Parts: sequence; structure tokens; C-alpha cells
Amino acid sequence: MSVTAAKGFTASGVAAGIKENGNPDLALVVNNGPRLAAAGVFTSNRVKAAPVLWSEQVLKGGQVSAVVLNSGGANACTGPLGFQDTHATAEKTAEVLGHSAGEVAIASTGLIGLRLPMDPLLSGLETAAAALSEHGGEKAAIAIKTTDTVHKTAVAQGPDGAWTVGGMAKGAGMLAPGLATMLVVLTTDADLEAPALDAALRDATRTTFDRIDSDGCMSTNDTVLLLASGASGVTPAADAFAEAVRTVCADLARQLIGDAEGASKDIRIEVVGAATEDDAVEVGRSIARNNLLKCAIHGEDPNWGRVLSAIGTTSAVFEPDQLNVAINDVWVCKNGSVGEDRELVDMRYREVRITADLAAGSESAVIWANDLTADYVHENSAYSS
Amino acid sequence: MSVTAAKGFTASGVAAGIKENGNPDLALVVNNGPRLAAAGVFTSNRVKAAPVLWSEQVLKGGQVSAVVLNSGGANACTGPLGFQDTHATAEKTAEVLGHSAGEVAIASTGLIGLRLPMDPLLSGLETAAAALSEHGGEKAAIAIKTTDTVHKTAVAQGPDGAWTVGGMAKGAGMLAPGLATMLVVLTTDADLEAPALDAALRDATRTTFDRIDSDGCMSTNDTVLLLASGASGVTPAADAFAEAVRTVCADLARQLIGDAEGASKDIRIEVVGAATEDDAVEVGRSIARNNLLKCAIHGEDPNWGRVLSAIGTTSAVFEPDQLNVAINDVWVCKNGSVGEDRELVDMRYREVRITADLAAGSESAVIWANDLTADYVHENSAYSS
Repeated sequence: MSVTAAKGFTASGVAAGIKENGNPDLALVVNNGPRLAAAGVFTSNRVKAAPVLWSEQVLKGGQVSAVVLNSGGANACTGPLGFQDTHATAEKTAEVLGHSAGEVAIASTGLIGLRLPMDPLLSGLETAAAALSEHGGEKAAIAIKTTDTVHKTAVAQGPDGAWTVGGMAKGAGMLAPGLATMLVVLTTDADLEAPALDAALRDATRTTFDRIDSDGCMSTNDTVLLLASGASGVTPAADAFAEAVRTVCADLARQLIGDAEGASKDIRIEVVGAATEDDAVEVGRSIARNNLLKCAIHGEDPNWGRVLSAIGTTSAVFEPDQLNVAINDVWVCKNGSVGEDRELVDMRYREVRITADLAAGSESAVIWANDLTADYVHENSAYSS
Repeated sequence: MSVTAAKGFTASGVAAGIKENGNPDLALVVNNGPRLAAAGVFTSNRVKAAPVLWSEQVLKGGQVSAVVLNSGGANACTGPLGFQDTHATAEKTAEVLGHSAGEVAIASTGLIGLRLPMDPLLSGLETAAAALSEHGGEKAAIAIKTTDTVHKTAVAQGPDGAWTVGGMAKGAGMLAPGLATMLVVLTTDADLEAPALDAALRDATRTTFDRIDSDGCMSTNDTVLLLASGASGVTPAADAFAEAVRTVCADLARQLIGDAEGASKDIRIEVVGAATEDDAVEVGRSIARNNLLKCAIHGEDPNWGRVLSAIGTTSAVFEPDQLNVAINDVWVCKNGSVGEDRELVDMRYREVRITADLAAGSESAVIWANDLTADYVHENSAYSS
């Protein structure tokens, strides 16, 4: 499964000694071709980690032969020396695999502002290369975990299994401490060139990873890569391929929300009746980021007033006295005022559904979020000290 | 002191029975003239409580003879009936005092989405009117508390005590539960007309109340009023009056941050070296609202990487490799990378100072915020249920 579900890929995950606790911390994913096409999307944070700056350049060439991912350190805000560390990692990988360093993508996750321990990392690359296997996908997924409690993988196939899209992810939405959150590697044996991969990947991330919002904090390290080996020999229809990529991304995105740090609830926020999709997304994000509402959901309190106050901060098209809000399908707010009895809302389960009807059009969007808990505070107040 | 520090004002605070626990919940502030000039600023949330909609209309006339403030209910998202309740409150006040209802401002605070208990409120107005006193300022300040642990008052005077500006406030920045947060009434015996009051009030709120940001949640009820009685007979210079109003507003704003719900730290965020003041405010707000940083401050962890990641989400002018950050005067980040030893930062005290230097100009701004604590989660997850 994972990144080795598609033909043409090998992977491994080892404990290189980057993490002080001895847990697996280095993953290697290799594309054995015949094609080396690739696409990537990266954090839009203007403060970008060294591996993001490096990989953005690599992806401009549209070819990736290998991806190195480490947990145990984000290599962000580490200056020119940190960038040299990333460069050295790519050079070492190229040397061990007999590839070109310009086709090696790098991703890192962990605390910001600390240099990586390069000796264990570089010697770990030799171990990781020796361990490469067609069945290494799970070990790779395990090696990129930080505070994730489970590793995350997903797979989808084309008609009759003619081609496969697989993937792995780490992180807890935007909730992971140190802001080194979401690393995703997707692989496929479909025979496609870089522009086709790029189109499918951007289409998928726009409505999946870009619409999970655990705590509103944007990472310096977010990286999502899609590698194609062409090993199936099949070139799928664009629609079918896009759908498969979207399925795998949505699956992984849902797993990230489900394992968000300290969270006790997964909140599905659907905004309907919007004049535009942008309006729906803006309102969804505003609701997703409202700390008071997130606390209320944690307390299983259907406090719809906090939903309305969040909607009221946006520039979306709506009239305050026409807003409707349902929590777990009970319309507790109608026409901007009191609706059905809030006592009817059952919030005992982990998944909570909020529906906000702007009564201004026919567009919609879904944003996933988490509640705000004392556990979140505890985990994130004691992370680096 | 409080709203009765200035000549020409009487006030009272009583327990009308709006709150179930029997605490004081109704305040009345009366301007006895000779002048009835007034100015006000209100929440920019598009979902506005009934008393905000009412008082915005009253203030357009530039005359306020009395202000009624209740805790125990926000009267927000209560529809046309809620607005009728506010109207009835103004009519009753006018009847009891012999004023015009169109000159009675109303402010409410408490849970959103519930109608106010009108019988106790209206009969409470008679009690409050009977209790009006030149020494009633403190009781009025006490009656508007919700989860505030202390009442908040401030005063400033012109040269030789020729005129006075006094005020009271309730709320905990934007931290108060139910989003019914900040109510402020300022009074002065300076002899000024409404436009002069409006100019001084907007100038003062722009750099005081508008720059405290406890949890990024914008209220449906925020109201700041300034009433002038003219009873000193002195018309101060515009600059001196603006300075006095700003002093009182800054004092009250600092008290709100200091009493924010669940907070253990008051965070002073100063952005310097900005290309524009707008840039400085945008960056300050982004830092103030970063949940991961707020958790780190709670844990006394000088996690400057979280400051940089917050700056990176803004559109301000800066280069990532020129950013500098100090925490309690230790420059832990220089040129976007590791600076002085983070172990040098002493964070044991309640006030924490973050300085972010954008190295892009000479403008600056100060934003005040709070940390994020388990106590905040507890208070806000159990408020309405």
C-alpha cells in the first residue's frame, strides 16, 4: 500500500538517529521509472523551510527520481547553513542511488529554528537506500510521523486496476507543534507527464488539503508531491485520474483531521447557499478558526451564536436576518434568530456537522476542523522546552 | 471615580434579576448637562446585537442623555422581538427620567441567542433611577461585569483639573464567553460638541481598544460611548482632550487584557521597522492570533519559530532573511535565523514582550494579546450548557 502500491516505486523507513528517542525518522521513496514525472504543491507561507525552497526548484524541472523525508527537525529558519544541509542531503542521496541531485526532492518536519544533525542523517541515507523495497511503503509512512499517533496511507485504482494512485501523509492538519505539519507523497504508475500531474494535483489539493484547518496556523514546511513512474504503461483519461488523486487526497486529509493533536472532535463545516465558492470557503474558514466556537464544540455545546458571530466577520454576501445554521442537522438558528430547540442536538460523537446557509446563492464548500481542547494547550505549551 | 468622576453625571448599579445568580446586572449612567453631546463606536461585526443597532441610530443625533447597560444577556440574534425589547427599554428609561427615548443609548452583554427577561429589567430601571448618585460610578462599573474578576475604571484630567475624563469598562478583550465582550462608557465635563467628541474617540480607540486581541473573536455587542456634560464650562484644546481620552482608553484596554478569561500572560507585541503602520498592525494581529504561539507563551517557551511562521502568513513588506525577533529583549532570531541563546529569556512574569523587526521601514504598532490556556478552554466549553 502507501507509496509502493503503484508499480515502479520502492521505499524504506529507518531510524537514523535524528530523533533523540530512537524512533524511525528517515524515509526514502524512489521512482524506478521508466518515467520520472512529478508535480508538487508547497506551503504558501512566505517563511519557507530550506527543504521547501530546495524542492520548489527541483519540481520546476518536472522530474523527481527520489524523495527524502525526515522527521525530528524542520530545518526552517536555519539560514544559509540550513540550506546547505538540504543541498548536502540531496547530493548524498544522488551519490548513493546513482541519480542526479537536481532530481531529489527533500521534505523535513519537526521543530523550527534548529539545525539538523547531519552525520546521522547522511549515514542513515545509506541504510535507507540498502533497505529499499517494493513493500517499504508502510515503513516509510511510519518514519515520517512526529506526534501522529498512527501512520496514514491511502490508495485508489483506475478501471480494472489498470493503474494505481497511492500515498502517505504525516501531520495533524495545521495542528502539529512547531508548525512543521503536513508532508504528503503520492505515487502513481500511470503514464503521465508533469503538466498532467500538476493539473490533477492542484485540482485535488484545492478541495482537500487546502480545506482542512485544525488551528489556523500555516506551516513553513507543508509539502505535497505526486510522482509518476509510468510503469503500468497506461495513460488514463484526465477525469478518471483526477478523480483518483482527489480520492486519495481526501482520504489522507480526513485521516489528518482524525488524528489532530489534542482534538476530541472532527468538525465538518458545510457552507451552502453562498453567492460564490470563494464566499463559501471564506465563511467556512472563519467558522473553523473561531476559538470560542471550537471550545463550545469541545464542551458539546451547540452554541450557534458563535457561528453567527464568526460569519459576521466575513465579507461574504449575506443578510444577517436570513442566516440559517444547523448543528448535526438540527436547525438551531433560522433567519438569524432562534430556531429549533438546541436540546435536540446530540453531540456525543466525535464527528460534528455544522451547516451554515447564507441564503445568498447556490454555491457551497466543505471545510474540516477540530475542536480546541486543554490537551491541545498542554501539547503545544511544552513542545520545545 | 469611573463615569461619575466628571461633573454633570450620575450613575447607579443594581441587581434587577436578569442574572440568575442575583449579582448586580443593570447600570444606568445619566448626563445632567448642561450639554448632552455624545459620540460612539461599535463592533464592525456584520451580525450586530439589537442594542448596537438601536444605539447606532441614537448616536447619529449626537445627543445622549442616558445609557442603560445590562449584563446577563447580549440580546444578539434575537430577531425583531429582541429589537422591540431594546426599544421598550429605552422608552421605559425615558419615562422614568423624563427624557426622550431617542437620546437613550442601550448596551447589553451576555449569551447570544436568548431574549432578555423584560419584567425584571423594566422594574429594575425604576430602582436604578431612584439610586442615581454622583458617587454611583463604581456601582455602575460592578453591574456590567460578566466573567470579569474585577471592575475596571480610569480617569484623566486636564491642566489644573479644569476638566475630567472618566470611564468604566467590562469584558476581557475579545476573550469573554458568548462573544458579548467589551462595553465602555466614558464621560467628560469638558464643553465640547459631538463632532469634537467623535474625533477624539475614534483617534483613541484606533490605537487602544482596536489593538487588543485576546482570541481573535469579534463581538456582536462591542460598544464604546463618550458623553460630554459641559459642566466644567471649559472647552479644552483638541490635542489635550484627545490625549486625555487616549490615556483613559489605554488604561481601560490594558485592564481588559489583564483580566482576560483564563489568561496567565499579557503579551505586548511591538512591530517595528515596518514600511507602513498598516503593515505593522497586520503583522501584530497575525502574531497575536497564532494559537501555537499563544500556547508556547503559556508554557514559558520562547518559541520564536512560531512568530516567524505567523509573520510569513501576512502581506506586509519584508524579506524572510532579514526578520529579527526579540522576546523579553533577547534577540532570539536575527536575520530570519537563530540569534541569541533562547535560554537567556526569562518568562516567569505575567507580562511578556515580543518585538518583531521587519527591517523594511520606520513605522510601528503595538498589539496586546493573551496566552492560550487550559483554563480558557474550560471556561468557554462550559459557558451556555
